[in-house]
Amino acid sequence: MEKTKKFLLPENELPTQWYNIVADMTTKPMPMLHPGTKQPLQIDDLTPLFAKDLAEQELNQTDAWIDIPEEVREKLKIYRPTPLVRAYNLEKALDTPAHIYFKNESVSPVGSHKLNSALAQAYYCKKEGTTNITTETGAGQWGTALSLAAKMFGLELAVYMVKISYEQKPYRRSLMQTWGAQVIASPSMSTKAGRKTITENPTYQGSLGTAISEAIELAMSTPNCKYTLGSVLNHVSLHQTVIGLEAEKQMEMAGEYPDVVIGCFGGGSNFSGVAYPFMRHNIKDGKKTRFIAAEPASCPKLTRGKFQYDFGDEAGYTPLIPMFTLGHNFAPAHIHAGGLRYHGAGTIVSQLLKDNLMEAVDIEQLDSFKAGVLFAQTEGIVPAPESAHAIAAAINEALKCKEEGTTKTILFNLSGHGLVDMAAYDQYLAGDLVNYSLSNEDIAANLSKIEGLI
Amino acid sequence: MEKTKKFLLPENELPTQWYNIVADMTTKPMPMLHPGTKQPLQIDDLTPLFAKDLAEQELNQTDAWIDIPEEVREKLKIYRPTPLVRAYNLEKALDTPAHIYFKNESVSPVGSHKLNSALAQAYYCKKEGTTNITTETGAGQWGTALSLAAKMFGLELAVYMVKISYEQKPYRRSLMQTWGAQVIASPSMSTKAGRKTITENPTYQGSLGTAISEAIELAMSTPNCKYTLGSVLNHVSLHQTVIGLEAEKQMEMAGEYPDVVIGCFGGGSNFSGVAYPFMRHNIKDGKKTRFIAAEPASCPKLTRGKFQYDFGDEAGYTPLIPMFTLGHNFAPAHIHAGGLRYHGAGTIVSQLLKDNLMEAVDIEQLDSFKAGVLFAQTEGIVPAPESAHAIAAAINEALKCKEEGTTKTILFNLSGHGLVDMAAYDQYLAGDLVNYSLSNEDIAANLSKIEGLI
Repeated sequence: MEKTKKFLLPENELPTQWYNIVADMTTKPMPMLHPGTKQPLQIDDLTPLFAKDLAEQELNQTDAWIDIPEEVREKLKIYRPTPLVRAYNLEKALDTPAHIYFKNESVSPVGSHKLNSALAQAYYCKKEGTTNITTETGAGQWGTALSLAAKMFGLELAVYMVKISYEQKPYRRSLMQTWGAQVIASPSMSTKAGRKTITENPTYQGSLGTAISEAIELAMSTPNCKYTLGSVLNHVSLHQTVIGLEAEKQMEMAGEYPDVVIGCFGGGSNFSGVAYPFMRHNIKDGKKTRFIAAEPASCPKLTRGKFQYDFGDEAGYTPLIPMFTLGHNFAPAHIHAGGLRYHGAGTIVSQLLKDNLMEAVDIEQLDSFKAGVLFAQTEGIVPAPESAHAIAAAINEALKCKEEGTTKTILFNLSGHGLVDMAAYDQYLAGDLVNYSLSNEDIAANLSKIEGLI
Repeated sequence: MEKTKKFLLPENELPTQWYNIVADMTTKPMPMLHPGTKQPLQIDDLTPLFAKDLAEQELNQTDAWIDIPEEVREKLKIYRPTPLVRAYNLEKALDTPAHIYFKNESVSPVGSHKLNSALAQAYYCKKEGTTNITTETGAGQWGTALSLAAKMFGLELAVYMVKISYEQKPYRRSLMQTWGAQVIASPSMSTKAGRKTITENPTYQGSLGTAISEAIELAMSTPNCKYTLGSVLNHVSLHQTVIGLEAEKQMEMAGEYPDVVIGCFGGGSNFSGVAYPFMRHNIKDGKKTRFIAAEPASCPKLTRGKFQYDFGDEAGYTPLIPMFTLGHNFAPAHIHAGGLRYHGAGTIVSQLLKDNLMEAVDIEQLDSFKAGVLFAQTEGIVPAPESAHAIAAAINEALKCKEEGTTKTILFNLSGHGLVDMAAYDQYLAGDLVNYSLSNEDIAANLSKIEGLI
């Protein structure tokens, strides 16, 4: 019999509900706090900025299953269900007894999993009569996804793109413009926050913090306008659970159940998406799967950060979030996995890690690219630099199996492809990339800045 | 019941044989001629340059079905079968009663259909003990595909990349290098042909003609080395028929049969691939499907060229090929659909067009990008500039249906995505692109140069 490489679900098996893990958690995440009153955040605190349905999802701790609107499912079908793939060629190259599977989110037309939440967020904004939305983008994955989603639901979108990315990643900007979005290099003259920054520092290359401030300011000062965010928040993780829910059915088709589930980790959206549906069987059915978040060694909030209340952005405009953090003013090195350069983790992941329901590992930049190139040469797909962290972690687990002579089933999420990030591979192949180490003193010094925040 | 958007075949429905339309043609294509003797080309004329199996396929006029080796099928499964997609959103935007389907070859890890033949060619070279292969690439699609295929079958590959593309398309070069190929800007100092060109014209930006000469020279002067080509030849079209064979089964799943089948046209590889399997039912079963090759208005060999014997390359090293041609020294304008900038068509397509078994239309550059942007904004996928020509032709047919009030079923091949060609979209959105017109005098003047070639 022929070996099956790709496990495909028909369209009608696209999940009809998202999975909200909070409802099943024994220890709930601690509440986000209003930055002024220090009281637990209420829906009314969120609705000026976010669509009401999204605000409700953000604070929902009781419903384990939330219906996916038909309008969203219809758009998801452009690329979903995505394939689950057995990485036979990678296994062979590693000479490992492990079975390696990956969920291929790179088949989305924007090239990453970000579209899963972008479509949902655009839909809910449109549904309540919003005409314009704003967001920020760093590496550009979220901005491209939201550009397509906004166009598909007939919304006008303004994206504040960190200036250095705007200049260094022209293809990302072109993609957003092709899908009809307005892209503004941040800091810009279009907001008070941007003007202030430019005035004080005319050559500033921008940061996610400034871009967030600009996007929020534009949303607050524009009629019928909401703000959207592509990671960290609970409702984003919720929308991403289609990844794991599909993978669960597909692993069943393959006749296996994962011993290890791995996702790269920036704000948590793709890790949560692949992990939570399987984690519910650890929580409820006594399964013993290990869940590994693979973060960059240059931004190690999960492996070396501290669990405490901190702000989600650099400027301190967001609610106080109970999180593993390196401090909201932590400035990560300019690694090419731009999507993983974030100082903190969302409330759910932080609680799960605290309760030992998951693990985290850190991956050096050079190891991530080495893994990425091996994957490209064996499985064909050039991975996004972010996803290469998950591949590196999967390879480490597979090599452990080889050492121990055990056959484990490893599943990782290939969150996206790297076709628009080839400049990074160019630099890696030319030997121009380096690792970035952080001393314990560096980390402690940065954490000391947020001591006594609450 | 839910509407189905994507029609998926399981892996075991991947075709086991390629379809060789020549065997079913009433009027066979005229033979290619040896440039020296002017006698019909024999296998021995081809084997110094091409793998023997490929040479046999090139000249095979009797077997309608040729087995796909298991080793090739196994690698094809990385991305095949590819989806057939109903373009509901595009239909809605056009307000047309037509049913529009597209075969999505952009899901290949190299982003285009070129991998279908690259894998087969690499396999046959490896099988006969070849260790090194060479090729040339203009726009870069073929070079990237062959790079991955060579790596997968353990061959060393040298790609001569037209110098101006090497400089203007760094992402394509990085992709080839990531997959392990050696990429040389052509003209180069590594061959006599290259050295001669550089010496005579040190600032020359290269051409496909020179790159072919260099790739052939390196193959001829290297032990255990063969040359490969990504279009025009019969064996390339043969390998591409997996596209149409899959689409045939998928159209059946959709409960429809195409009235019109469309592919963009450069050397003919993707058009042949989608068209021939359906065309056999016109030839054998009395079906009346129309087949439309969509070529760029700036390089109109099918719509305005002449049928006669001509060379396949600029320098005149290839056999004499019976083809629709603009003359082998025709210099097409620098349109962004680089893959369509070729002066002639293969022998099979040329004969089919001569016998009115197919049609051709020409598409202006600006119309192709307009169609590409509409497609990106409705169906999500940013198409390759080449594929946008097929989309434009499909839109024209769909609008005719609207005018006439007829419901036709239109199938086009989406040969690739444009994620590595965003600079072209950038220029289009900025209003920097133009159409290129050719006067009848221009065309006649160029054709006069090949008068009396045989």
